Amino acid sequence: MAERSEDSYMWQAIDLARQPLFAPHPNPRVGCVIVVDGQVVAEGLHRAAGTDHAEVAALKVERDLKGGTLYVTLEPCATHGRTPPCSTRILSSGISRVVIASPDPNPVNGGLGIKQLREAGIQTEVGMLADDARALNRGFFSRYERGRPWVTVKIAATLDGRVATANGESQWISGEAARADVQLLRAQASAVLTGVGTVLADDPRLNCRMDGLQRQPLRVIVDSHLRTPKTATLFTVEGDILFATGGKVESESLPTSESQSRIVSFESADGRVDCRKLLDYLSELEVNDVLVEAGPTLVGEILDAGLVDEMVIYLAPAILGDSAKAMVITSVINRLTDRYRGKFEDVRFVGDDIRIQLLLS
Amino acid sequence: MAERSEDSYMWQAIDLARQPLFAPHPNPRVGCVIVVDGQVVAEGLHRAAGTDHAEVAALKVERDLKGGTLYVTLEPCATHGRTPPCSTRILSSGISRVVIASPDPNPVNGGLGIKQLREAGIQTEVGMLADDARALNRGFFSRYERGRPWVTVKIAATLDGRVATANGESQWISGEAARADVQLLRAQASAVLTGVGTVLADDPRLNCRMDGLQRQPLRVIVDSHLRTPKTATLFTVEGDILFATGGKVESESLPTSESQSRIVSFESADGRVDCRKLLDYLSELEVNDVLVEAGPTLVGEILDAGLVDEMVIYLAPAILGDSAKAMVITSVINRLTDRYRGKFEDVRFVGDDIRIQLLLS
Repeated sequence: MAERSEDSYMWQAIDLARQPLFAPHPNPRVGCVIVVDGQVVAEGLHRAAGTDHAEVAALKVERDLKGGTLYVTLEPCATHGRTPPCSTRILSSGISRVVIASPDPNPVNGGLGIKQLREAGIQTEVGMLADDARALNRGFFSRYERGRPWVTVKIAATLDGRVATANGESQWISGEAARADVQLLRAQASAVLTGVGTVLADDPRLNCRMDGLQRQPLRVIVDSHLRTPKTATLFTVEGDILFATGGKVESESLPTSESQSRIVSFESADGRVDCRKLLDYLSELEVNDVLVEAGPTLVGEILDAGLVDEMVIYLAPAILGDSAKAMVITSVINRLTDRYRGKFEDVRFVGDDIRIQLLLS
Repeated sequence: MAERSEDSYMWQAIDLARQPLFAPHPNPRVGCVIVVDGQVVAEGLHRAAGTDHAEVAALKVERDLKGGTLYVTLEPCATHGRTPPCSTRILSSGISRVVIASPDPNPVNGGLGIKQLREAGIQTEVGMLADDARALNRGFFSRYERGRPWVTVKIAATLDGRVATANGESQWISGEAARADVQLLRAQASAVLTGVGTVLADDPRLNCRMDGLQRQPLRVIVDSHLRTPKTATLFTVEGDILFATGGKVESESLPTSESQSRIVSFESADGRVDCRKLLDYLSELEVNDVLVEAGPTLVGEILDAGLVDEMVIYLAPAILGDSAKAMVITSVINRLTDRYRGKFEDVRFVGDDIRIQLLLS
């Protein structure tokens, strides 16, 4: 067999990181491969917060690793977190070379692992397939680099971009397979965000109903005047709820289950919720990825504020015409050059529907 | 090599029929394969009206065909058209068995070829892969079976289903690759249909600018009150033009180049063009396939009249919001069960855009 390229070992590590169905919130996805004499002798990946980091998982192999190379998608940690630092484990393993795809963006940790390895005489290289490794953890990087989570808007619409009929019927525009796919989006998000309008209209649970899920995403309700009724179905299922209000709201109007929900004000000049402040706050809560499942008005506000990174659109094979509700209500765009632009990242069939992924630029 | 299945020979014939980039308007696409002793010894296909039919092209092979089987996607003709009948050519070829995918829907010819072959003692089977063979010539079958052409609506829109900005800018929503793809749609259509609104707004040529094209599609302008100016760019390029009016219109308002264009009235109760009558008329002109490239109002009228068979939608990676122009202006749809429904037949990337094909049901 021909010798494998260095890149292929890093691809293998990236592939390992991508394996778990659920993200290890609030930690990043990380994969690791150890190569001795041209042979992969160990693999490791990080599955959930509090469990082994990818390097530690790989280093558990019972074998002499002397002179080996360790490929890892993210800089090894050098500080004690919930687990001992990975860098010291590498130093005592006999590994002589470490190849890292991307530095750690965490200001507490970033660079320390690399420094420690180099000072101990381990040949350490950084940057191989860095972009592909970063794509594993867009929310994690966004949180440290931009101070806000990665924001994905999910919409189910007809082929002509309509989310409800003229008199408001919207259940169900997309098919079962698309709705099952949304469950996976929720499982991978740290938080799911909607508006009080959707709560009042659809009374959704907004939880993830997939088997094996370790934690429910935080449910965030944009509810300027706290109109969510105490009887909302939201409160009947497990999972934390954050009510984002547009100013101080009387506490009598609070929903009853205090332990499950909290209310935070993100005041803006017009009494509405300041979505930028809300996202900053979510970042502080270690929310990497927010899935927005809201109506056209709230989606448009977030889009107009320049806060949308990605859209996942499920298009049904149907037409509802111009009297039906628009997918997004934005500020008026008169010139084509002022349109919101992006790049299609993926398109595929999901049951009878089409799923389109757009990265906003 | 394992022996091939009968089906595989018919698939080969279907594939041959599909090969020409341009349809043999007004004739159907047809492919033919001749098999002797388990070997394909000849292939044929119909490229353009006036040239060899598929069977004749295949039978030209210089080889003994005694005891062979001829696979053909459409019933061989039994009457003299622009070329001699195929059935008599088959009778004198030594072929002992004929397998036909689909009977000919033409009332003049349909069934005669099969009858003639059977009376001459040739084992003749009909129906193998009939649906797939029919799909080669949806317009041809539509014209004979429904008395109107196959109608495909083409739209270029943003991901949120908008075809122009709030103040009307629409050029160009889709990219170059999508616009090149539209040229291929025009090349394969017998006619291209638009409204006077599009002529006044965009002053298009509506011709096909592909190399090697034998004939331009007929350009049909829905123009109730004949408002197309004599100076329209339409008249500066080769190809016939049909103006469909909503009633008698003064001939002084006629465009000048009489030989190129004609005016026909398709009166409806409200003075607008009766699109059903127009399509009946196009069918009489041997128009198999109509490509509608019109604005949202005319598209909506045709959709509301139940006359759309297929939509080809190019979606650009952009959002224009609710103030922008809707893709389709239809009658009001209040109930989700009343939406226009269909089935996605294909989705693919075309340059930076996505191309979606919807078959209406």
